[in-house]
Amino acid sequence: MNDIKVGLIGFGNIGAGVVKLLQENADLIRGKVGTGIVLKRIADLDITTDRGVTVPPECLTTDVNAIFNDPEISVVIELVGGYEPAKTFVLKAIENGKHIVTANKALLALHGEEIYAAAARKNVEVQFEASVGGGIPVLSAIKGNMAANRFGSVIGIMNGTCNYILTRMTQEGADFSDVLAAAQELGYAEPDPTFDIEGVDTAHKLAILASLCFGTRIDFKDIHTEGISRISGLDVKFAADFGYRIKLLAIGKHSNGQVEARVHPTMIPLHNPLADVNGVFNAIRLTGDFVGPVMFYGRGAGQNPTASAIAGDLIGLSRSMMAGAGRRMSPLGYLDGEIKTLSVKPMDDITSKYMLRFSVKDRPGVLASIAGALGTNGISIESMVQTAHQEDDAAPVPIVIKTHEAREGSVQAALKEIDSFEFICEKTVFIRIEDNLE
Amino acid sequence: MNDIKVGLIGFGNIGAGVVKLLQENADLIRGKVGTGIVLKRIADLDITTDRGVTVPPECLTTDVNAIFNDPEISVVIELVGGYEPAKTFVLKAIENGKHIVTANKALLALHGEEIYAAAARKNVEVQFEASVGGGIPVLSAIKGNMAANRFGSVIGIMNGTCNYILTRMTQEGADFSDVLAAAQELGYAEPDPTFDIEGVDTAHKLAILASLCFGTRIDFKDIHTEGISRISGLDVKFAADFGYRIKLLAIGKHSNGQVEARVHPTMIPLHNPLADVNGVFNAIRLTGDFVGPVMFYGRGAGQNPTASAIAGDLIGLSRSMMAGAGRRMSPLGYLDGEIKTLSVKPMDDITSKYMLRFSVKDRPGVLASIAGALGTNGISIESMVQTAHQEDDAAPVPIVIKTHEAREGSVQAALKEIDSFEFICEKTVFIRIEDNLE
Repeated sequence: MNDIKVGLIGFGNIGAGVVKLLQENADLIRGKVGTGIVLKRIADLDITTDRGVTVPPECLTTDVNAIFNDPEISVVIELVGGYEPAKTFVLKAIENGKHIVTANKALLALHGEEIYAAAARKNVEVQFEASVGGGIPVLSAIKGNMAANRFGSVIGIMNGTCNYILTRMTQEGADFSDVLAAAQELGYAEPDPTFDIEGVDTAHKLAILASLCFGTRIDFKDIHTEGISRISGLDVKFAADFGYRIKLLAIGKHSNGQVEARVHPTMIPLHNPLADVNGVFNAIRLTGDFVGPVMFYGRGAGQNPTASAIAGDLIGLSRSMMAGAGRRMSPLGYLDGEIKTLSVKPMDDITSKYMLRFSVKDRPGVLASIAGALGTNGISIESMVQTAHQEDDAAPVPIVIKTHEAREGSVQAALKEIDSFEFICEKTVFIRIEDNLE
Repeated sequence: MNDIKVGLIGFGNIGAGVVKLLQENADLIRGKVGTGIVLKRIADLDITTDRGVTVPPECLTTDVNAIFNDPEISVVIELVGGYEPAKTFVLKAIENGKHIVTANKALLALHGEEIYAAAARKNVEVQFEASVGGGIPVLSAIKGNMAANRFGSVIGIMNGTCNYILTRMTQEGADFSDVLAAAQELGYAEPDPTFDIEGVDTAHKLAILASLCFGTRIDFKDIHTEGISRISGLDVKFAADFGYRIKLLAIGKHSNGQVEARVHPTMIPLHNPLADVNGVFNAIRLTGDFVGPVMFYGRGAGQNPTASAIAGDLIGLSRSMMAGAGRRMSPLGYLDGEIKTLSVKPMDDITSKYMLRFSVKDRPGVLASIAGALGTNGISIESMVQTAHQEDDAAPVPIVIKTHEAREGSVQAALKEIDSFEFICEKTVFIRIEDNLE
């Protein structure tokens, strides 16, 4: 069989990585697939800037239609990113009977359903391993060898910027803004880091994971999303005192026909493997009814790891084509019509443990008032730390409480009450705790 | 398309797990594959004992030929275990054009090449995710989404018995024989535990991993194998003092056309995610030239996790058949003829750091002699611990040394020399240290 011909739209950092990999490991790939995988066309608005890789000049084009209209091209890699024109490009490619490989988590989180429906009509595949966890082959595993499982939970550390910042805050006792500035200098955070540090990127990835794991449509706006910008060095320290580490977690759960989907800073036990996921590394932990808990760990971003995942998708499609297969798998791994619409549990109804850090004026009755407000809202206290009062009686002191499992709505109601008390010096900080991890 | 009909040979614990999974999750699987996966025939010598699952009586047979000769059956699951009659069964099934799904690491480690060649001639697949790491979908990832990588190393904690024992020794400060006895009582170790605790099971799994990762035949007898029976509570304690945890590691490396393949107790840094792999959990860590380091973690054995991996293989084969594919992938993921014969580095030539625990009579000149013997063999000392001498001058004292990277042959030569010294009270214990882990 002739080489598999591929079109690439978007010749940025990742695109250059794909070019590099397909060149450097061409023999390895041929020895596994039985034919070559060749980037026949690369389309971008800018085809002159040197990307550090050598491509035949006839390969480059500014005209995406050169890819869509080429009957030789069987797979289109979309690496433009964002919503448009990426969505238009993907739908056009599908319309012309091309399989899709993409890394575009934002596009799939918001427009996945429309894209998958188009792919079903044209009987083509959409693969997107690179959209979650960089090079970590987690999506293939969920859709592939773990497909016999009903998944109860999926928990992820999936944003390298946030994890890098939190790791340094943990290891150095540094404050958020100092570490963010350092991260930006080193290129681990964008000049405008909002998308990453406010958890949006992680929420996009959770939307994809949840639909794969639970076989449901997830409306991206139903995902409760909080970032890490309000985490202080003091929180990191108290968490450690309680035996926990703070991570930005994506949490997806499925039980009794209802789904939880939330992204927020979360304390996890120090001894858990997830707690050792540091720096720019990512990890995704799932629980399946037969496989039990499984964790995947690796580089969640970067030119080379992302190129690995994209090439893996190309190899998978190529093997299918070489074996004479039509569409071997639907994008989510479920037959069309099998995707359900499960209700998303309102945030107020989720239950969790919490670390609550109150900043109070040191005077009699404070603790009683706090404990009283917690008690009337049905929240039990598991443990508490109050540091000795300062020389300066006017300075605020921290009271830190770890609750038992409690309902989110009750906790928020209690905090609203407590934060209105006169002795409160600043808005109470709450951080959810995820203890149920093997 | 009609249901996919499967034959199962070996109705033991794992076989019962497969029956259970295919029954409980039948709808889920149908919703993903597009047809049912049905165990049409189950063959075993004993078809009367209750396995705790209900199967139609007409399904059970004592005659394996009822499976081989049935044209409706397209996949045979081999769960007999061991070498024979498993090998004969597998070859017979292949001869009759059936795909194979197996969990038999021993069979593949020793006879894999013959089986894969037969499968190539008959154009059928051999899948064996369950043979390494239980439910952890690591083999599919190596063959699948990570297939574009050249792998430099594969490191595994892959035997639940050994890991359970070492975890308890670490957490409780207990001695090997006490924990082994407890493990046997709890069913985590066999009455005759040799196969597990002497590292043979782990070596079988490493043979499979190394051939997948490095595209080479591995002669099982070339794998240097040491178990955990000589590890004492004192070693565990000193390792912790140095900042390490002891695990039974499988280590495979590939560079410059040469392969390392060895199984032995190894110290790994406390902060590394591998160090938190405890109890019966397994983990496999790989490094690929593009994906970088990746780690897979989960339950490495047990009825349910193993059934998950087997069902995953069935689903993969079924999807291919539904899409009209012939053989989509060779057993190792490489084209026939692409498997090389790389030389295995002799154990003497590997390099490592070492912890050396000498048991000596406390008298002048001992340390000088030891350091001298190490020095003349080119071994540098990184750090050392010598505890104060006992009240009783005749009692042996431990001297524990951590070396820099050194050649195994040099270390063994030095130890041979040192162990002949008059002041040595018992054979020096050496434990290799693996520091190069991200």
